[in-house]
Amino acid sequence: VPGSLERLFNPRSVAVVGASSQPEKAGNVILRQLIGGTFRIYPVNPNRHDLLGLLCYPSVSALPERVDVAILSVTAAATLQAVEECVQAKIPYVISVAGGFSEMGEEGSVVQKRIAEAVQGSETRLLGPNTMGVMVPARKFDTFFLPRERSPRPKDGSISIISQSGSVLVGMYEMAEDHGVGLRSCIGVGNKADLNENDFLEYLAHEHGTKCIGMYIESFADGAAFFDLAKEVSKKKPIVAVKVGTTSSGARAAASHTGAIATSSDALVSGVFKQAGVLRVADDFELLDAAKALAHIGQVNGDRIAIVGSAGGFGVIATDYIASKSKGFGLRMASLGEDTKARLREKVPPFASVENPVDLTGVVNDQMYHEVIELVQSAENVDAILLNLLFQPPGMTVGVVDVVERWARKGKKPMVVCCVGGTFPRSILRRLEEKGVPTYGTMRRAVFALRCLYDRGQYLRRIKEEGAA
Amino acid sequence: VPGSLERLFNPRSVAVVGASSQPEKAGNVILRQLIGGTFRIYPVNPNRHDLLGLLCYPSVSALPERVDVAILSVTAAATLQAVEECVQAKIPYVISVAGGFSEMGEEGSVVQKRIAEAVQGSETRLLGPNTMGVMVPARKFDTFFLPRERSPRPKDGSISIISQSGSVLVGMYEMAEDHGVGLRSCIGVGNKADLNENDFLEYLAHEHGTKCIGMYIESFADGAAFFDLAKEVSKKKPIVAVKVGTTSSGARAAASHTGAIATSSDALVSGVFKQAGVLRVADDFELLDAAKALAHIGQVNGDRIAIVGSAGGFGVIATDYIASKSKGFGLRMASLGEDTKARLREKVPPFASVENPVDLTGVVNDQMYHEVIELVQSAENVDAILLNLLFQPPGMTVGVVDVVERWARKGKKPMVVCCVGGTFPRSILRRLEEKGVPTYGTMRRAVFALRCLYDRGQYLRRIKEEGAA
Repeated sequence: VPGSLERLFNPRSVAVVGASSQPEKAGNVILRQLIGGTFRIYPVNPNRHDLLGLLCYPSVSALPERVDVAILSVTAAATLQAVEECVQAKIPYVISVAGGFSEMGEEGSVVQKRIAEAVQGSETRLLGPNTMGVMVPARKFDTFFLPRERSPRPKDGSISIISQSGSVLVGMYEMAEDHGVGLRSCIGVGNKADLNENDFLEYLAHEHGTKCIGMYIESFADGAAFFDLAKEVSKKKPIVAVKVGTTSSGARAAASHTGAIATSSDALVSGVFKQAGVLRVADDFELLDAAKALAHIGQVNGDRIAIVGSAGGFGVIATDYIASKSKGFGLRMASLGEDTKARLREKVPPFASVENPVDLTGVVNDQMYHEVIELVQSAENVDAILLNLLFQPPGMTVGVVDVVERWARKGKKPMVVCCVGGTFPRSILRRLEEKGVPTYGTMRRAVFALRCLYDRGQYLRRIKEEGAA
Repeated sequence: VPGSLERLFNPRSVAVVGASSQPEKAGNVILRQLIGGTFRIYPVNPNRHDLLGLLCYPSVSALPERVDVAILSVTAAATLQAVEECVQAKIPYVISVAGGFSEMGEEGSVVQKRIAEAVQGSETRLLGPNTMGVMVPARKFDTFFLPRERSPRPKDGSISIISQSGSVLVGMYEMAEDHGVGLRSCIGVGNKADLNENDFLEYLAHEHGTKCIGMYIESFADGAAFFDLAKEVSKKKPIVAVKVGTTSSGARAAASHTGAIATSSDALVSGVFKQAGVLRVADDFELLDAAKALAHIGQVNGDRIAIVGSAGGFGVIATDYIASKSKGFGLRMASLGEDTKARLREKVPPFASVENPVDLTGVVNDQMYHEVIELVQSAENVDAILLNLLFQPPGMTVGVVDVVERWARKGKKPMVVCCVGGTFPRSILRRLEEKGVPTYGTMRRAVFALRCLYDRGQYLRRIKEEGAA
């Protein structure tokens, strides 16, 4: 497929232009991180014979093959010439890391325009400048100039993220790694001199490993094209997006960050997103929270939520978040049938509550969770389950991870897990997350995720009805 | 001071009625956890000669002294008699741990009423039943029946929390411990047969170590008394409160949890809180986030916030949260004077931004933070600083902890710190927190804390003006 970007994400060979021997330089960090990947690597540096055990080449034209990707780790001043050499060598993808272009004002914009002109009409597509580039954990392909020791990378997963901010992207993948969430790919679009968010959205729509697309947007390269494209993509894959600069102060801050002028009003953005089926979220945290639910569960078809837990107080907090329209997320508490309640009563102690929120109290144990989840999974009036695990009760062990995973796999009702606390609860959440169960450290976040799943379900229903009409 | 509750929080001697040799029993866990405290401990169990190296007593009347506190770890059925024995022995404070009373319906309510009557008019005050009791880290006094191995305790600090839910309280102290936040005391009020939230609010108002009072409330024991009391207390110490059951579903859930009937409308609660100077927050997380800012910083006198960081994207996210009234927290971005900007330009590289948000870019290092914070600290148009630390830039080291701490101590402008990411950023936040700097893992939470500090400042100004008028 021409222009499919496939080789940018799955290169057979990579050149690092500006490869360096100095460990703190980007040209060294990038090279170090590429080693171990499943592609050939060529450092380009006219002043070195070899680097990190790899033979150096004086220029891209001197390389023994036409590489799929050239990563330019040279100064802003040297970038234009480096791009021109890549165009001449017909290298299909160039990633330009250096900052100092449109984000720096008039002068930088002029140079950036010349870079854009250099690739226009050529066989070369450019990502950047002013970008971290691309990260594909499954292929150990990673152009981010941050040492892994300082910035641990996530494992492979089914979420891909397109970001107009490198730091926000780094924050998100570090969080993902920390929580055991896998990412399929990370893309920093930088200043978008050539390739922009729309190109990557199109690519990810067809990339089989991506089940949910997350976007952090400061400005649109082409808002109308985004709308048309997103509308099509979101029919197949959920798109979650942060659009910042919602206030005039924020828009000014965005302008001084990437030189992007936010021309669209915030209400317009919200309207367009809604119509295109793009789920708008407030920040990087909400993006990850929503994306992991959508990637793993996909959708929830109704708004009736059952809470299962062992702590009355958290049940009340969650209930408010579920039921409140103004301060919460405007869902409904499932009303458990008499039949379900009768069967629950057989499984739980007399002082437990079999009303929703189901409160198993401090005598709860792994087996009780198993039996209660089984019953609530088969209850008629329930669309999704919020499981609130607490590990203070002495009967609770890490064995509950297997119980939850089993039901998350074979159960018909979507289930998200909340677990509040410190190091130990966090380790449990991580284990569940690694098994594909969306987990949250607060009730608010768990209910927020359910709302996102419900919105996705409603959207899919709507376009299905429209299609049938 | 009669009724000051001082000895409940600082007992010279404690009895554990129902002390047990079985490690999983509450009567064993509590006893184990008391050992190591600075008070005398007496296990009461008629069937044992000794327990955990301590001599056992057959009943409270057989104790060698009148203890300050008796902790009743006996069944619901045995509780009334145990309370009566404590009343007879004139023990000033009794903590009744067992559940199975008003939260269980009619029958339990009857017994609970008899317990309340047993202490009425006596020299004994009762906390509970259905409570975890009290935790005072500074005195290693802790009646919570959760082993420390499973549920690590926080260090001493200046926040005290009154909670109507044991689990929510446990969640909060575990979070506090995990984040390096100290707590002065934790109180689970349980079913409030005798002592209630108002008694503890009054005590904490005069407790010198408590600088901020947090409350989790499902229902008011006496709403009018709470209003009058809170109004007085909040003049001296900030009160942050969660009042759940804001929806009818939530109110029903609360009723089935502690048997409490929420008679007050949610809007009424908000109005009363506002008038009384009580800062209403949504959940346990917001409570801790607000409380640590209020305990350490106290107040912010204006709404002009300066952001200092090294990542443009996070600067934009923070700006939106600061400036947006509908989606954010309705503060203002400080406008830095030309003088300040000129001086900043001397300290930072040419491609850094000296507009607010100040963006030091990836070349930032500890020393640059020191110099820039110094300048922003002395800027005229700034009321508070939001510092966004990121550790990807190679020049950043843990040394920045000392820089930030120094300015947090000697600087005139209040400062909160945000740091997004995984294990390493979390460890930095913890170190800062331990030094008394309020830290947050997301921009939203950091700006929320600033808004709480601003609201507190506005409240104090208002009552000062009212006092002068």
